[in-house]
Amino acid sequence: MSDLTERARQLDATHAHTDRRSQFRIPEDVIYLDGNSLGALSTAAAETAADVVSRQWGGQLIRAWNESDWWGAPERVGDTIGALVGAAPGQVVVTDSTSVNLFKVVVAASRMRPGRSTVLTDPDSFPTDLYITRSAADLLGLTVELVPVAEAAGRIAELGSSLALASYSHVDYRTGELWDLEALTRAAHDVGALACWDLCHSAGVVPVGLDDGGADFAIGCGYKYLSGGPGAPSFVYVAQRHLADFDSPLTGWQGHASPFAMSRDYEPAASITRARVGTAPLISLLTLEAALTAFDGLDLQEVRRRSLSLTGFFLECLGALGVDLPLATPREDEHRGSQVSLRHPEAYAVVQALIARGVIGDFREPDIVRLGFAPLYLSHADALAAAEHVAAVLRDKEYERPEFRTRAAVT
Amino acid sequence: MSDLTERARQLDATHAHTDRRSQFRIPEDVIYLDGNSLGALSTAAAETAADVVSRQWGGQLIRAWNESDWWGAPERVGDTIGALVGAAPGQVVVTDSTSVNLFKVVVAASRMRPGRSTVLTDPDSFPTDLYITRSAADLLGLTVELVPVAEAAGRIAELGSSLALASYSHVDYRTGELWDLEALTRAAHDVGALACWDLCHSAGVVPVGLDDGGADFAIGCGYKYLSGGPGAPSFVYVAQRHLADFDSPLTGWQGHASPFAMSRDYEPAASITRARVGTAPLISLLTLEAALTAFDGLDLQEVRRRSLSLTGFFLECLGALGVDLPLATPREDEHRGSQVSLRHPEAYAVVQALIARGVIGDFREPDIVRLGFAPLYLSHADALAAAEHVAAVLRDKEYERPEFRTRAAVT
Repeated sequence: MSDLTERARQLDATHAHTDRRSQFRIPEDVIYLDGNSLGALSTAAAETAADVVSRQWGGQLIRAWNESDWWGAPERVGDTIGALVGAAPGQVVVTDSTSVNLFKVVVAASRMRPGRSTVLTDPDSFPTDLYITRSAADLLGLTVELVPVAEAAGRIAELGSSLALASYSHVDYRTGELWDLEALTRAAHDVGALACWDLCHSAGVVPVGLDDGGADFAIGCGYKYLSGGPGAPSFVYVAQRHLADFDSPLTGWQGHASPFAMSRDYEPAASITRARVGTAPLISLLTLEAALTAFDGLDLQEVRRRSLSLTGFFLECLGALGVDLPLATPREDEHRGSQVSLRHPEAYAVVQALIARGVIGDFREPDIVRLGFAPLYLSHADALAAAEHVAAVLRDKEYERPEFRTRAAVT
Repeated sequence: MSDLTERARQLDATHAHTDRRSQFRIPEDVIYLDGNSLGALSTAAAETAADVVSRQWGGQLIRAWNESDWWGAPERVGDTIGALVGAAPGQVVVTDSTSVNLFKVVVAASRMRPGRSTVLTDPDSFPTDLYITRSAADLLGLTVELVPVAEAAGRIAELGSSLALASYSHVDYRTGELWDLEALTRAAHDVGALACWDLCHSAGVVPVGLDDGGADFAIGCGYKYLSGGPGAPSFVYVAQRHLADFDSPLTGWQGHASPFAMSRDYEPAASITRARVGTAPLISLLTLEAALTAFDGLDLQEVRRRSLSLTGFFLECLGALGVDLPLATPREDEHRGSQVSLRHPEAYAVVQALIARGVIGDFREPDIVRLGFAPLYLSHADALAAAEHVAAVLRDKEYERPEFRTRAAVT
């Protein structure tokens, strides 16, 4: 047994109490390093999806709204996610997509800061955040400034009372860098502005601490580390102190204070319910709810320790195996999310070669091999095996094979 | 055998070729007259939901985007729905909720008619349409006028060049009245304005004829007569001639011309894809796609004849059985959607009494007993049985029982 194999065995023993692999259904021949794009299927999710379809929809029909409490699901699942991101109950609801939720937040936040003309966001945000922020700002006559998060605090101070909102990602989707939510939120508050955080790549792997960090708003998706299923609906957080002023532009009937009164005038619910719009996709929403049971009994601090151990050990293995690709991800634990991104000029083909070997990661423009470590269902043994495959692909230059260079529709 | 029983038998024989009941899983003890709120489960939908969860998500994982063409699903399902509402391919996409899609349309349509200050809609629209239309108009500095559809043509002519958009429901959700899409669209066009139609209560039961009727935009939900499952995503239609100018305020990455280039600047896709925003809830979306196979081989004109025969026969039965409640639904075939709404001062309790008898309809404020006839899985025998239950509930005043007067959370 090699030293690395023995190290993997020891680390897996040390972190045995956070191993939830048995709750997931991952194909035998796969090392799945793309749980940060589409989380894996759990048995609970599969069983609930079947139950929602056959027993609830098929058997209860319209009565399921009451008998299975479909109506309360967006807030109920919201509170469950809230517990994972450090939000007390009543501040998170699951509804719509991340893009749509960001639109609500940018408009509502800007309306809370009348007379302030600027919204700040990161040029390296996931593109939808840039597009949506600009669209919302256009409708309101505001300006969007793109400032990298590393320079944001300084720019916030310069902008002062002209800043309405700073909207940033907690973890960079490409590099995996983890940013300081509390410090940047404080910088925004220091000039009287608001802060919104995109938690797509931190929810479920980092103890986000929304309440403790003083965040005003947050959004995030349900299908990455939360494993809610493809296109699972998104969540939106509005801090309790802002609920009464949260004036969403998407005033759907399900956000109404008395939706079944069918009034002609919109009166928003007093609670986070006001962020609801239309009918949620219930099969997807309730499947997400079931998926979240994988976190039952786990503290996010424990999950975070396992996550850092996995990515840290993976980096150690790469080093030991002679892989010296430039690292896009910070080596320091406090700056690293739950992924390792390597740079390679043939990154797309490298990813394809790895997939052919059963190691599923993904490519991100322009040169990123992105490998995500969903801690609940990955082991240190997986991390070592993945590192060995990366070393083999590079050593044998498998990325030069023509079949790995043909781009698929979805990259 | 009574005359009505014999009539039902004959009518079911006449319409046997449009009977798809065997494809649906409806509980034995239920006559389901709420398919206009939540369509029933089909075997195809149940099987596909299980396949999407276990084989696609569970087995293919992230590869399903290509291997199962998840990426193309919104447009693919859109074209299938398009065929049911008279839209040639390339003009319909399935995405988001009806409310969110209406928001896109009101903003985009108004932007196509700069300088025009008024949006017209029906005070009796489903409330979300009113709320969303007002919110969109507020952002643009426009005025919303509420004018009943019966008076809309006259008001459109008066407003002339100040009208940007007339936005109406094709079938009134409470009364079931079917409006003249072509005539009202022409009235809007005559003054240079645009027309949007809410097809929630006509898609799948009326040959809507969007292209032939000259409609500019339409929206509608997937979970009523289309039986796509609870909260199935919604569809939006943008006429081919408007696609290049459709400037949606919800500029998500999936509507980008090159989404995987991850560009910082938004460039909308040339096609209907530009109405996409974020990732669709795929389990719900693909379940809807499977549900639509119930329409395979059917002409909507045939479905419409069956629908009118069912509601017409139900009215005949009510009359023969001495039920003389005021009718909210027009008796004339050309003005009737696929439902029968009766007025009763104790409408809520009447509906509960019917549900206790296994006849599931729903209550709508203030006094409506709403009974929907989803033609694909209801028979004339069902219509007769339902009428007999209505007669019995009224004859025995079952609605006076206390247990039927307690309001549930979702009415």
